[in-house]
Amino acid sequence: MADPEPSKREADIRTESGGPVVVLVEPQLGENIGMAARAMLNFGLTEMRLVKPRGAWPNAKAINASSGAHALLHEAKLYDTTAEAVADLQRLAATTARLRDMIKDVQQPRDWAATVRAAGEEGERCGILFGPERVGLHNDDLALADTLVTVPTNPAFSSINLAQSVLLLGYEWRLAGGGTTPTQIRRKGWGAVPATQGDLVAFYEHLEDELGKAGFLRVAEKRPRMIRNIRNIFNRAKLTDQEVRTLRGIVVALAEKKWRDEGES
Amino acid sequence: MADPEPSKREADIRTESGGPVVVLVEPQLGENIGMAARAMLNFGLTEMRLVKPRGAWPNAKAINASSGAHALLHEAKLYDTTAEAVADLQRLAATTARLRDMIKDVQQPRDWAATVRAAGEEGERCGILFGPERVGLHNDDLALADTLVTVPTNPAFSSINLAQSVLLLGYEWRLAGGGTTPTQIRRKGWGAVPATQGDLVAFYEHLEDELGKAGFLRVAEKRPRMIRNIRNIFNRAKLTDQEVRTLRGIVVALAEKKWRDEGES
Repeated sequence: MADPEPSKREADIRTESGGPVVVLVEPQLGENIGMAARAMLNFGLTEMRLVKPRGAWPNAKAINASSGAHALLHEAKLYDTTAEAVADLQRLAATTARLRDMIKDVQQPRDWAATVRAAGEEGERCGILFGPERVGLHNDDLALADTLVTVPTNPAFSSINLAQSVLLLGYEWRLAGGGTTPTQIRRKGWGAVPATQGDLVAFYEHLEDELGKAGFLRVAEKRPRMIRNIRNIFNRAKLTDQEVRTLRGIVVALAEKKWRDEGES
Repeated sequence: MADPEPSKREADIRTESGGPVVVLVEPQLGENIGMAARAMLNFGLTEMRLVKPRGAWPNAKAINASSGAHALLHEAKLYDTTAEAVADLQRLAATTARLRDMIKDVQQPRDWAATVRAAGEEGERCGILFGPERVGLHNDDLALADTLVTVPTNPAFSSINLAQSVLLLGYEWRLAGGGTTPTQIRRKGWGAVPATQGDLVAFYEHLEDELGKAGFLRVAEKRPRMIRNIRNIFNRAKLTDQEVRTLRGIVVALAEKKWRDEGES
């Protein structure tokens, strides 16, 4: 389809705000980053974050492949870790072709889009993770997400290009704007605010630190999987900031007996 | 997303028949032809026709970009004119970004997919035309179609890549088949069994007992609500029996230092 005036289009990047943040984790090819940027802008998504993209950045191949979505690429932020890239987000989905040994909500793109639209209307910051070409997201990154999104491809040929995957989710997000059907758990009222990824990771690290001290994670080879499993449990709960404070209070109470000492001395 | 065994996949090309024929009119870049082939096969479309592709055919760039959809490319038929390419089809749609001065039915991809599925059930042969990169379909080609299909892009940045456009229509066609709908929470494999209410309540009582001992629930009037809030957190996570055991282990570790005592004594 036609693209007569790319330069004129560059000015119009901020067409729609409040869309989910697109996080590309270790993208290997500049062309895919550029095509993903174009696909995002095709459907009004504007915020891209990159975790350790391969090669130099800015990347000429990305800019060429973006067909004019230059400003979006210029504003893309770089991060060293996925955890840092998502620290301010309150809802996080992760794309995956394979449903691994993780217990998590799984959505198709259309349902994901409805969920994200509804969350956006509540003022929640949402994001979606895309893994590196070929290998997909590492389990540690999947463990950060509250939801997995999987595209219903042909089972005999399921590998979908990175930028194509971004496109489909952007497309569904845009269409979902037409008439949002809220789904999923709502925590209305009571001033409950979804916890940020930063709050969650701080809680996990606190818990894991105490578990380490208690000897619970002492078998080194089981430790990474154990930690992922524990994080998955709490990610699925889509915790509020108040709930994270409660859980931290529980860890302190159990581990340090703070309240008991105060209460009984 | 992963693509571990492209060669094995080549054998499985004829996964679904009766899908619309994809006709690329004067495609300029081999990469786009290859990516379109991949996108088609991702959603079970298998019949590609090419009208005067630029450069030699077969095209090495197309084959490389197809990520294993080689057989689809090998079987693609070449034509000199669009009219010849669509001669045997009974329904023909044409993609366009601009609605020109033509009186024709216009559909979005989702409606087009429903129409094509219905026509396919009647035994009608359907096809869809995609124009050359940048310029789009010539008016003479649009005139061959009974319907125009337009993707609802961001008006400020509407130019969509050729292969991306093929992808979206293939995706909608596949979803319109009602085929894949499994969604929602999956607890795949590994023998994970949802915890019973009995398991959960036993865990809650264990946790609450330890919290009581630690003085965390010492304010009597807050206690019932606190307990409800804590139970809600874990109920939302829809725990498996294994996860309940893990959480009980955590409570024991933190509260009783069982592992630490064992490990260090």
